Amino acid sequence: MTIARSEVRRAALRIAPYVRRTPTVLLGADRAGLPHDVVLKLEGLQHSGSFKARGAFNTLLSAPVPEAGVIAASGGNHGAAVAYAAARLGHRARVFVPANAPEAKLARIRRYGAEVTPVGNDYAEAYQRSLDEEARTGAVRVHAYDQREVVVGQGTVAYELSRQAPDLDTVLVAVGGGGLIAGCASWYTDSVRVVAVEPERAPTLHAARAAGSPVDVEVGGIAADALGARRLGTIAAEVTGRYVDESLLVPDAAIRRAQEVLWEELRVLAEPGGATAVAALLCGAYVGAPGERVGVLVCGANLDPASWSVLPATGV
Amino acid sequence: MTIARSEVRRAALRIAPYVRRTPTVLLGADRAGLPHDVVLKLEGLQHSGSFKARGAFNTLLSAPVPEAGVIAASGGNHGAAVAYAAARLGHRARVFVPANAPEAKLARIRRYGAEVTPVGNDYAEAYQRSLDEEARTGAVRVHAYDQREVVVGQGTVAYELSRQAPDLDTVLVAVGGGGLIAGCASWYTDSVRVVAVEPERAPTLHAARAAGSPVDVEVGGIAADALGARRLGTIAAEVTGRYVDESLLVPDAAIRRAQEVLWEELRVLAEPGGATAVAALLCGAYVGAPGERVGVLVCGANLDPASWSVLPATGV
Repeated sequence: MTIARSEVRRAALRIAPYVRRTPTVLLGADRAGLPHDVVLKLEGLQHSGSFKARGAFNTLLSAPVPEAGVIAASGGNHGAAVAYAAARLGHRARVFVPANAPEAKLARIRRYGAEVTPVGNDYAEAYQRSLDEEARTGAVRVHAYDQREVVVGQGTVAYELSRQAPDLDTVLVAVGGGGLIAGCASWYTDSVRVVAVEPERAPTLHAARAAGSPVDVEVGGIAADALGARRLGTIAAEVTGRYVDESLLVPDAAIRRAQEVLWEELRVLAEPGGATAVAALLCGAYVGAPGERVGVLVCGANLDPASWSVLPATGV
Repeated sequence: MTIARSEVRRAALRIAPYVRRTPTVLLGADRAGLPHDVVLKLEGLQHSGSFKARGAFNTLLSAPVPEAGVIAASGGNHGAAVAYAAARLGHRARVFVPANAPEAKLARIRRYGAEVTPVGNDYAEAYQRSLDEEARTGAVRVHAYDQREVVVGQGTVAYELSRQAPDLDTVLVAVGGGGLIAGCASWYTDSVRVVAVEPERAPTLHAARAAGSPVDVEVGGIAADALGARRLGTIAAEVTGRYVDESLLVPDAAIRRAQEVLWEELRVLAEPGGATAVAALLCGAYVGAPGERVGVLVCGANLDPASWSVLPATGV
């Protein structure tokens, strides 16, 4: 499957009244021990707290939504985004969630007015239930990552970034099911090098490359509630196979350290999944060439600040 | 005292290598019950977590700093900024703090490498001690608000915002000792309406206007550790007397609500003083005209996220 750049551009115009143009900020080379300046795209400031709002709005604005409303399977950022978008557009929303989803994220989904239905103990069961419900009611399903309108919508992050920072050589993107990186790579094609970053404990893209096609992986670790898809999406597999030539893994400790640096240097709170791409720079998994202009998507901020504690003492 | 716009422009160029161009983001009229869009300048993302870094760098870059280094009196954002700037520029720093200053802020001052000396129980005692130390050692003193280089440095926030959002009609600015608003009003002069916002429980500018000149006020409330100067600075009194025609008061509950909205809508954590100007919009203390373009400085983010809790349920 190929997604044309024009599709991403059209999606950007379609969702513009509903999504926020999130800011960029420079993390200077003199800070945090980085070898070069880095442009951070603060997509955690997006409505619903992550980039997922883009794909949700693009899907719901691309076709008529019946009385039965909207359904999704997700106990995390996608569920919150679908609930938010449905409420903004005046649709009913029902979100099927694994029973073990984090309470803070479930509370957010409910806060946006969606009906939350716990189903089983993992995403697969919740997802199957959403399929059944779609067949039964005719509600519009919004997939968490493997649906064309969703991927195209996520790609509008890159469209926007390419206008805010037109001189980037490289953009680092975190990968779960692969919707975000597929959308971004579809926009940038080969004009910018798009590099995938995954937690060591949730390596869907890495495993898909090793196996030659998407395979199930064990997922865990601190970013699992955002990046813990068990298998790379088919759209992501095709698009990244064409445009993404580097897939990096980072340990949980580096993700945690990236969260700390984002707070310490910028007073930006990012959830583990949102800080994962930053971790690749800080731990040396990605080392840019001298003068290389690197951008990073800080893609989610749905955490409970109260779970965060003041940092240990560090130097300037 | 008059500060020329050219002084602010020169300061912006002088400190540019050391301060961050902080981002702006739009808080849409459809959100948070606002009657119109608002441009937020996220100055809490500045180095050291507040605008205070600007004045500190401008002061330390405006004259030679002797071996004795730099001194300041502040248990809060100013102390952190002076410590940060001194460390970046390779100077010794000593910060005199009231013994009751918040531990999180003291820890930050120490983290930047400054020597922290507790003196007495209020700012006045710490300040007097800094004067004695200046006389004894020849160290350069950086005043928290009532020093020309400091005020000029703080004005670079407005200089920067005027380039990021050149079409603003009005900018809301929180006031403690008045350094920030004096700097901003010196830049904007009468090209943009600058509106002062203070906590009801720390009304230095409001009281100065009522009395005809700066007077001591009782200070307290949730923003006191940032906006709790007891008396408006003399520079601020002169500059605001010329350029600021509106001085608003907001209750602590509105400040807290502004913090909640900033997190809920934008995943931005602001300290109470940083959210105070936003509060004026949310509680109706400031009501813009139809079509008016309003900007707000979100000027500080030095709080302990762990002291923050997940918000109660609200609608979309």
